[in-house]
This record gives sequence, C-alpha cells and structure tokens, in this order.
Amino acid sequence: MNIDRFRPVLFAALAFTLPAAAKAQTGLMPLPAELTKGSGVLALQSTFKVSTPRSHDARLEAAIARAIRRIEVAADLRHEGRGVFGTTPLEVSVASPGQAVQSLREDESYSLTVTGEKAVIEANTDVGAMYGLETLIQLVQPTPQGYVIPAVTVHDSPRFPWRGLMIDCGRHFQPVSVLKRNIDAMAAVKMNVFHWHMTEDQGFRLESKLFPKLTGKGSDGLYYSQEDVKELVAYARARGIRVVPEIEMPGHSAAWLYAYPELASGTVPDDIRREFGVSDVAIDPTREETYVFLRKFLTEVTALFPDAYVHIGGDETPAPDWKNNPRILKFKEAHYLKDNEALQAYFNTRVLAILTSLHKRMMGWDEILTPELPKDIVVQSWRGVASLAKGAQMGYEGILSAPYYLDGMKTAADHYLADPIPQNTTLTAEEQKRILGGETPMWGEHLNEVDIDSRIWPRAAAIAERLWSPQSVTDVNSMYDRLEVVSLELESLGLNHLQSVDARLRAMAHTEQIDDLRTIASVFEPVSFGERYKAQHTDQLTPFDRFVDAVRPDPWSRHWSNLMVDRCLQKDTDACGKLRSWYAEIARAIPHAKQQMRASPQMQDVLPKLDQLSVLTELGEKAAESLEKGTVVSSDTAWQSRKNTIEEAKKATAMVRFTFLDSLTKLTDAATAR
Amino acid sequence: MNIDRFRPVLFAALAFTLPAAAKAQTGLMPLPAELTKGSGVLALQSTFKVSTPRSHDARLEAAIARAIRRIEVAADLRHEGRGVFGTTPLEVSVASPGQAVQSLREDESYSLTVTGEKAVIEANTDVGAMYGLETLIQLVQPTPQGYVIPAVTVHDSPRFPWRGLMIDCGRHFQPVSVLKRNIDAMAAVKMNVFHWHMTEDQGFRLESKLFPKLTGKGSDGLYYSQEDVKELVAYARARGIRVVPEIEMPGHSAAWLYAYPELASGTVPDDIRREFGVSDVAIDPTREETYVFLRKFLTEVTALFPDAYVHIGGDETPAPDWKNNPRILKFKEAHYLKDNEALQAYFNTRVLAILTSLHKRMMGWDEILTPELPKDIVVQSWRGVASLAKGAQMGYEGILSAPYYLDGMKTAADHYLADPIPQNTTLTAEEQKRILGGETPMWGEHLNEVDIDSRIWPRAAAIAERLWSPQSVTDVNSMYDRLEVVSLELESLGLNHLQSVDARLRAMAHTEQIDDLRTIASVFEPVSFGERYKAQHTDQLTPFDRFVDAVRPDPWSRHWSNLMVDRCLQKDTDACGKLRSWYAEIARAIPHAKQQMRASPQMQDVLPKLDQLSVLTELGEKAAESLEKGTVVSSDTAWQSRKNTIEEAKKATAMVRFTFLDSLTKLTDAATAR
Repeated sequence: MNIDRFRPVLFAALAFTLPAAAKAQTGLMPLPAELTKGSGVLALQSTFKVSTPRSHDARLEAAIARAIRRIEVAADLRHEGRGVFGTTPLEVSVASPGQAVQSLREDESYSLTVTGEKAVIEANTDVGAMYGLETLIQLVQPTPQGYVIPAVTVHDSPRFPWRGLMIDCGRHFQPVSVLKRNIDAMAAVKMNVFHWHMTEDQGFRLESKLFPKLTGKGSDGLYYSQEDVKELVAYARARGIRVVPEIEMPGHSAAWLYAYPELASGTVPDDIRREFGVSDVAIDPTREETYVFLRKFLTEVTALFPDAYVHIGGDETPAPDWKNNPRILKFKEAHYLKDNEALQAYFNTRVLAILTSLHKRMMGWDEILTPELPKDIVVQSWRGVASLAKGAQMGYEGILSAPYYLDGMKTAADHYLADPIPQNTTLTAEEQKRILGGETPMWGEHLNEVDIDSRIWPRAAAIAERLWSPQSVTDVNSMYDRLEVVSLELESLGLNHLQSVDARLRAMAHTEQIDDLRTIASVFEPVSFGERYKAQHTDQLTPFDRFVDAVRPDPWSRHWSNLMVDRCLQKDTDACGKLRSWYAEIARAIPHAKQQMRASPQMQDVLPKLDQLSVLTELGEKAAESLEKGTVVSSDTAWQSRKNTIEEAKKATAMVRFTFLDSLTKLTDAATAR
Repeated sequence: MNIDRFRPVLFAALAFTLPAAAKAQTGLMPLPAELTKGSGVLALQSTFKVSTPRSHDARLEAAIARAIRRIEVAADLRHEGRGVFGTTPLEVSVASPGQAVQSLREDESYSLTVTGEKAVIEANTDVGAMYGLETLIQLVQPTPQGYVIPAVTVHDSPRFPWRGLMIDCGRHFQPVSVLKRNIDAMAAVKMNVFHWHMTEDQGFRLESKLFPKLTGKGSDGLYYSQEDVKELVAYARARGIRVVPEIEMPGHSAAWLYAYPELASGTVPDDIRREFGVSDVAIDPTREETYVFLRKFLTEVTALFPDAYVHIGGDETPAPDWKNNPRILKFKEAHYLKDNEALQAYFNTRVLAILTSLHKRMMGWDEILTPELPKDIVVQSWRGVASLAKGAQMGYEGILSAPYYLDGMKTAADHYLADPIPQNTTLTAEEQKRILGGETPMWGEHLNEVDIDSRIWPRAAAIAERLWSPQSVTDVNSMYDRLEVVSLELESLGLNHLQSVDARLRAMAHTEQIDDLRTIASVFEPVSFGERYKAQHTDQLTPFDRFVDAVRPDPWSRHWSNLMVDRCLQKDTDACGKLRSWYAEIARAIPHAKQQMRASPQMQDVLPKLDQLSVLTELGEKAAESLEKGTVVSSDTAWQSRKNTIEEAKKATAMVRFTFLDSLTKLTDAATAR
C-alpha cells in the first residue's frame, strides 16, 4: 500500500521549506530541556574539522569519531580517511572526562550552539559531550541544496538520572552482537543504564569459573563468557551507559538449581525449565552452605561489573518448600520468621551483607522492599507508581518499570504518558528525589534474536524521552512525528526493527512479493505477552515464526487513523478522502494476501481476520465517503449487521488484533448520526 | 507495486498442488547430477531424530546440528533443546571425515534418499555429507497441511572441483561478520573456495607481527588480526570451504610500499592510495632485500592458511620505474631480461621458490602465465575462456573468472550461460582436466559492508550452479524460478541482500513510506563498475549511498517482462493484460516518487529518468492494451516521437539504467506492425 498518498511525509514536506526555516525539533528525541532556534543553517558541504580545546581522552576521541562517521553517512559526505580533515568547524569543549566509574551523580548536561559558521558542544564530562553529539546528529536534515544543521542553541540535561532498558537474556539467549546494537540505540536516545537480566529458570547465562556447572548444565551452551562480559561493559562505558547485572535469587533459579541441586529448598529440577511462569523451586535460605556459595560466586562475578549496583531480582518466590520442608519450618520457628516473606527478608539481609562487603549496593524488584532492609537499597517497581511512591515515603530510592513493560504490546503513547512522578503527586520534594527514574523491561518469553529489535524499538525511544525531557513535554502527535525520524536513525545504526518484519513475511509467504501482506500486516498488532501465553501455551522451545511475530507493536495505522478520523469529523473533507482511499487500498490487498495465507502453514490461522477485514474496510470506505460528500449513510439492517462486525472483530484471532477499530467506530457512528 | 498481481508466485502456486506432487526441484540450486522423484512426501511433524551409524566427528555433528536448526526454523518445528529428540528419522552415514586439509581431491559426492518414512544421507566424507544436508534443507516445502520433504533419490557430485567466490577486502574493508555470512551462503549453494583478496593499493588488511607497519601504516586500522584469520579459516573449514589468501605483488602494493618504502622500485607513495585504477608503484624485483623480506613475511603469514594454494595476484604491473630506474635497467641487462614481462617472470620465479620451500603452490592472475614458470602453478583467468584454454594447452591448470565479474552488473543469465569448457571446446580430455572450475570475483571499489550482499547474491548462486551441475543444465527460466527460492533461503541465513535495498531507500527518502520508490527502483539496475567509475570519479572515500547503491543488479523486472512480452506476442492475452497493469502500476508510482526524489540530495539526479519513465510506461500500457484487444496502434508522429524515447532512455543517467527497454521495444514494434 502506498501510505504516502494518505499520510503526511515528514521530511518530504520539510524539505521544501528548508533551509529557510529548518525545523530544529524535527529529529530530536528526547527533546532537550531548552532549545532556542537561531537563524540560518550550518551547511554540510564537507565533513567536520574537530577541535577539542580542553580535556580530551581516548573515550571522547572515539565518541567524536563515531559521531562524525554517522553524520558523514547520513549527510552524503566524504570520509576523509584517518583523522578528520573536513572544513566544517566542530568544537567539543569538555571540562574533564568525568567519573572513572559512571554513577547517578555523573554530570550529563551539555550545551550545543550551532550557527551558520560552526557547531560548538560544551560539557563538564565526556558523557555530557556524547549527548551533545547525539543531538547534533539528530539535527542533520536534508534540503534540496544538500544537508544542513539548523542554527540552534541547546542547554540540556536529564530530568531523571536513571534511564534504563532491561533485556531478559535468560528465557532466550541474545548474542552479544544483538546487545551491542541495542546499546547503540540506547545511546542515541540518551538512555544510560543497561539492566542485564542474566539468570532465569530457563537459563543461566553468566560464566563462573568457580562454579562451571552453572552454565555447563544450566545454559544449553548459550551463555556469556567472562570475556564477553568485559567486552560488553567496555562497549557500554564507551557510550556513557552503565551496566547493572541481574542475578535472580532465591526464585527464578531452576537452571541454577539444576546445576547445583544441593542449594535447593527441597524440590530439585530435573532439567533446565522449559515452561514459563512462576516456578516453585527456590534457593534454600536456611543453610549456611548457601551463603558460602553466594559469597564465593558473587565475589567472582560482581568483580566483572564496575557499576555500584547489583540486582538480585527477588521477585515471585512462592517457595512451597518453605511451608512444607520440616527443616525449613524449624529454622523459621527458631528465628521467629513468621512467614515466607520474613524468611525471604532474612535471605535478602544475608545477601545484602555479602554485597556490602563487596562494596556493592543491592537492587531488587518490589518484593525486596521490607522494613528489615536498610535505606540504601534500590527498589525496581513492577507494581506501579503508587508502590513506588510508598517506597519513597518509607525512605527508599526506586525506579519505575510497571507502565513500561514492552511485552505488554501497548502503544508508544501509553508508555509516553506514564510519568514516574505524576503531576498530582503528593510526595514531598525530598521524597521525589528518591525516585531516580525508570526502566523499560524487555522480557524474553517470546523473543528471538531476529525479532527483539522490533519489540523494543522505536517504542522505547518514547520512554527515553519521558525519562529525559521536562515533565511538560507531553504532545503525543509531536512524539509520533519524531518517533518516525528516530526509527530511521536507529535503522542506520544497524537495528533491524524495520527490516525483520519484511523478512518474516517473506519467509512465511515463500516469495519476495509481499506488498499485499505488508499492507495487511500494517493494520494488525500482536496481543500482549499474557494473551499469547494463554492462547499458544508457549514455552522456551516454541518457534516464534508466525504472523504475530511479523506484525509490529503499535504500528502507525492506529495513530494515523485516529488523527484522520478526528480531522474528518471536523469537516476536513481531504482527511475523509484519505481515509476512504486507505480503506480501499487495504481492501484491494485482501484477496491476494488470503491466497498467500492459505498457502502458508504459519499464516492460515489469520484467515478469519481477513474476512472481518473485508467487511470493516467496506464500512470504512462507505462512512468516509458519506462524510466526504456530506451525505448520510442509511442505517439499514445490512449496515447494522456490518457494524456489529466491529464488535466481533475486537476479539483477537491468531494472537493478533486490529489497530483501527476505535477510529472506525467513531467514523461509522458519525456517518450515520447526522 | 504489487507484482503478485502479475507474476506467478512460485510457492503459492505450488502449495495447492502439494503434497500430492511435491516439486522436487523447486528449491534446489545447484541442481544435482541425478535426481529421481519418489512417490509421497516425508511430513515434518516434529524435528529430526538423527543417527550417524558410521564415522562421525565434531565437525559433522556440528554441521548436522546447524542444518537441523535451519530446518526447524524453516518448517515451524519445535527445537527440542539439547541434542535432537524429534521423531523424524534422519540417518547420516559417512565413511570417514575426509582430508585433514581439504584439497581439490576431496570426495564431495553424496547420496540422499527421502521416503515417506525417513531421510538417509550417504557420503564418503564430512564434506559430502554437508552437501547432502544442504540439499535436504532446500527440499523442505510448505503445504496447507504443513511442511514436507518430497520423496526423492539423489546421487550428486560436482562437475568442477574449484567453485570459488573472491571478496576484495583491500579497497574497502569487510568485517569478519560480513565474510562469515557470505561463507554461510557459499556453503548453501555448494561453493568450496573462499578467495580472500587481502592486500591492495588502498589497504593492507593482513596482520604481520614481524612487519607491523604493513597494517599499522597501511590499513587505516581496518585489518584482520591473526586471530581473526584463524577464526575465519576454522569457520570455513567447518563448512567444507577452503580459504585461499591473495597477497598482491609486485603491483597493487601502494599500501604495502607506503608502510615499507625501502621495498619500492623508485616511486614511493606518500599515503595509502585513495584513487582506484592501475597504480605505477611496484615492489623492486631486483634487490635481494626484497626476497629476504618476502621469505620472512610469507613464512609468517602463510602458516595461518592450511590450504595448499597461495595467490600472489601478479596482475596490472606497468611499473614505469622498471623502464626508467637506472639500477633496475642495469639489472635487467645483466640478467638478459629483455622487458618488464621478463623481469616480472624473474620475480615470480623467485617468489615461487619461496612458496615451494613453504610447501605452498603458487596461484596468480593471467599475467603470471609465462613459459619460465613450472606447470604446477594455477592461473586465474580474467582474460577469458580462450586465454584459459591456451593455458590448459600449455599444460597449466586454471580457473575461469572473466565472465563472472559481479561488478560488471550483468544478469544472472549472462553469468549462468558462461561455461569454463564450452560445448564447442577443442581441448582434449586431458587438457580439459586442467580446467579446475571457476571463481566469481566481487571487486571492492564500490562496496560497503551494507551493500555487498546485494551485489553478490543471489546472482552468485547461478554461477555456483554452473560450476556444480552437469553442463546440460542450462534452462534460464528454471534458473530464475529457483533463484528466487534460494534468495529467500539466503535471507534466512542472515544475508541482507533483500533488506539493504529498502533500508537504503528509507535512508534517502527519510521516511518508512517507500512503496512507490520501491516500485520505481525495481525497473532500474546499476551501471557497470567501469561506467560508474567514469561517471562519478569514485575513490576509496566516496560515500556509496545513492540511488544506484539501492537498486539491485539484475532485478526480476527484466526477466519477467521478457517472459511476459514473449507470451503476449504469442497471443496470450492474459500476459498482455498483466503487462498493461504492470506499466500502469509503475506510472501510478511516479508522481510521489518524484516528490521524494526532489526532496532527497541523494536522489535528485535520478529525476530525468522518471520523466522518461512516464513516457515509457504510457507506451507500454498502450501497446499491451492493443495487443490484448487485438487492435493496432496507429503509428502517428506522436507515437513515433514517444517511441524515440526508448532510444534516448537507453543512455544511463545517475548511474542507473532501465531493465525493460528490450522487451518494451519488442512490444511496441509488435503493436504497430500488424
């Protein structure tokens, strides 16, 4: 489908007005704290000539070289060999390299001034300068006369110091190359914490030389060597990103306890756990041997991670053994531990003592928040803003994750509008300071290394803006416009979130000719993790190669059709016309898409949805046409029965649902109402 | 454009006839020497249960595991964790691992028998078994009832023992990851020699610990460490692929001589050479120090490559210094070397002595073929079949490359029909034995790591078939049908040849909405390396990010439009109708594509072509319509002037040319003739 006939093309539109009035915000995400548009543009006739008048170390030099290479590629510029020998002046003025180990107190601020003559970045640290460079890259824009950077003055610093992405490498292993490209993407949108979820019931991915069975038995051979870890930590450091490892305990430990059954509370797994969901096995918190093991193990592996924080998980530990195992019951009684929560708090206290002796700060999910624990732990809230606020009132630092679960398959707008500190917060200023920011978790039940990018990006960029930009930045339309631009920047960085969708369609259809399938796929979205899990009873060995794996979370069709319908209802007949042709284009693609789906074992279950789609597009076309012409649709029984299809169509089939039913309802109601 | 409305979709068509009559040859490339279709199919309800009754070593086990994983992914099967616990029986019966160092005499034959109950592969070596596994993978086909493998009996072995791909990593460096995925692709189409072109005027890419300046000064920091080399050699060995390194001498050595000027014949480069084309600098063949250096260097680096052959290049050495440098002139006189050719032959003899002492066989381009050299060298012919035959008559072994230059941007059909030993050969049987096979060279002037796959694949698969399958296999239509299927197999292996085109269009148009651009791009092809070089005066620092870099060599539009026009002229009105709608679809895409091209600095120069395209599609639509209806186009002056556009349109603009002008000429002539 040629959506351009309907949809405003950001840059094509732009290019005709540039450079006269280069849109300074076009490609910026996150939006800076303060941006003043200058007059004119810096024309990019040749690559940059860089000066670093103050501090410059190897990390900064490498970051500058990477940034300039990206601008050369984006702006069609010659790469002048070794060093940088262009003529466009770029001054990167940095006070000092910054902290040897990046912390929450790293100064991330920067200023960027672009005039018709040169670009100047000023920062107190390498990290600040890197963010300045990312902003510079995002400002590059095409004009019919060539590429330019609009004149601007930017003073920028983040709202929250903790802006994280968590990737679950336990349930499905992700190669280092995948993690690297996602770290590149994080840096591009100014995220600064990679939360590395390394152990799970389904796999223990972190090499221990003291306890080789952890990966030897617990990983299917899919794990990160200590060399891999050092390499990734250095890669992240070079991009201003901290790496916080998560080692789940006492629950989510089936792979661990399969390798070392002597640590189990009673129930011993006879294999790596293939099924998903909360498991009953747990590390035994009552035996001293447990803490001897943990001290040795944590001493070995935490040394690989310079960051101050170690995440111990701590969530979802029903541990029936703790209620049934006589030895454990006796221990609870002897230590006045009234229930499992108290026993887990005891365990956490013991682990905290070990981590503290290793000069590490402990972090965990909501469950670790119990009065027994001191105030210097950090709580990651999967329960939500209220639970986070409660922690802050109790004096605990925390970060928000609940509204940012990417496997919920929610819209970028939903994520975008969820604020760690809502406008109406009742927290005191001091309590608010304890809310460090947020993290978007990418859980791994339904991932493979091909699909993961499209599940994270570009939606995570909207979350990155929420965590960086001022609270007042909440314009969803502007966010979606800029999200498309950033999405392309990420592709140029090597992310495959746009390409993998087409590749999957080709693989299922067994042909390169997927234009119609692409059109159809654009009006579907995957159901949430939970819905799919129920529908498909997935486990670690399930192949993720179906239509649901090809369709994107929050494709543009929802936001665009909402926009167009609103305009159409405001008597914008052009918008009505665009909608009419859009429905017609979709309808036109249905017959051939059906043929391809019938022939594909992975797509046959989608066919019922296409029968609904025929009716829905017919409805939409008729409704849009009547509004375009100012006529009224006669609401006869045929029309009514067709309208009922909208209700039926809301039910997911083949684990996908339509994106445009709300806007279609609005449209059809309006077409009959008058 | 929705080409499916016009083009038969191989698998969609297939699926309705399967499994009753599974098309055994559908996905096979190269075609086996002998294939007999059985009755029924092996249904893939679960993954394989493998037995290896005879020899099995780690290499074979790993190859089986990789192959089964690919089938699981292709056929929507659960991966049953460690080992292989499926129910579909697969027996891999191998006599012995084969040679410790794979040579031209490795037994590559295999047999494959598939029945309704099981699949059996029999081979004398691991390599033969690997080819059997590749054939098994290519036989997997979808049906509405699920994936199947048709019952077949295959007895297969290659026509030529040398089936190579050369990648030039000198002019532009290619990361190890790019080489690995191309080696995967080679294995999938049963190629067995990776010719690694490692040194050039523009870069010396092979690390020497004895002579660190070679890469320290000669590579811009872009080179292969000795660890990289070992890793890649092992990776290729695991896939039955030999690695032949090429170290160019005495010419193509500017980077080398920039690092070690004391080896130069006189002229000394003051930098790595950025411009392309034949260079004047050359290693000095007259000084003993040269051979001291070469002995040390070759002793060090050839030890990294187990293969029997070392390629010394030896081409394009005008070496004016050899005509002007008095010292060199004196040397020639003293040694009765009448001209530069004689001097180079002297040099080759000295290098040969070194290589022989290292137990290596020497290989080079045509120029090394001089009577001074013994018969155990191998000549790689860039001059063509005649030159190759002449060598064979003189008693030299050789391989053909001239007709297989991928940067010539020729069609797969052109490559396919070029035979190292043509039907009409006058060579004796013994002389024919000296023709070992062929190699397709991918020269690096206009490559980057994003575009390289689309320049090599899928065309190289047609060459692989020429070198493997019987001489009688020459059906171009069948080749193109199977090429599309193999192209998708390569994408599933991780090749980006399909994805990179869209990514480039998005990057130039600055939007995800490239449907119309994609339609337009599908009727263009890049001009040859030579034409582009002249038009753009490219050098190593030129960015390769324009429309010409986005369009594919030999896109389907040429072959398809030729086919359709032929059918249409044979009164197949359906074909005429398909052509008519095809031209209409292209015409429909032009206005918006123009708008996007005007806005894109990288595409503006293509605009004149789109004005021509409007006229051409109008011509095509009219002509096809008249033939469809059996009417005649009145050949008035307006029509004539439009027809003249075809001639003008043959001239390339913006380094791209149309793919469908021959078929359009046929069509329009026919429409006016009657």
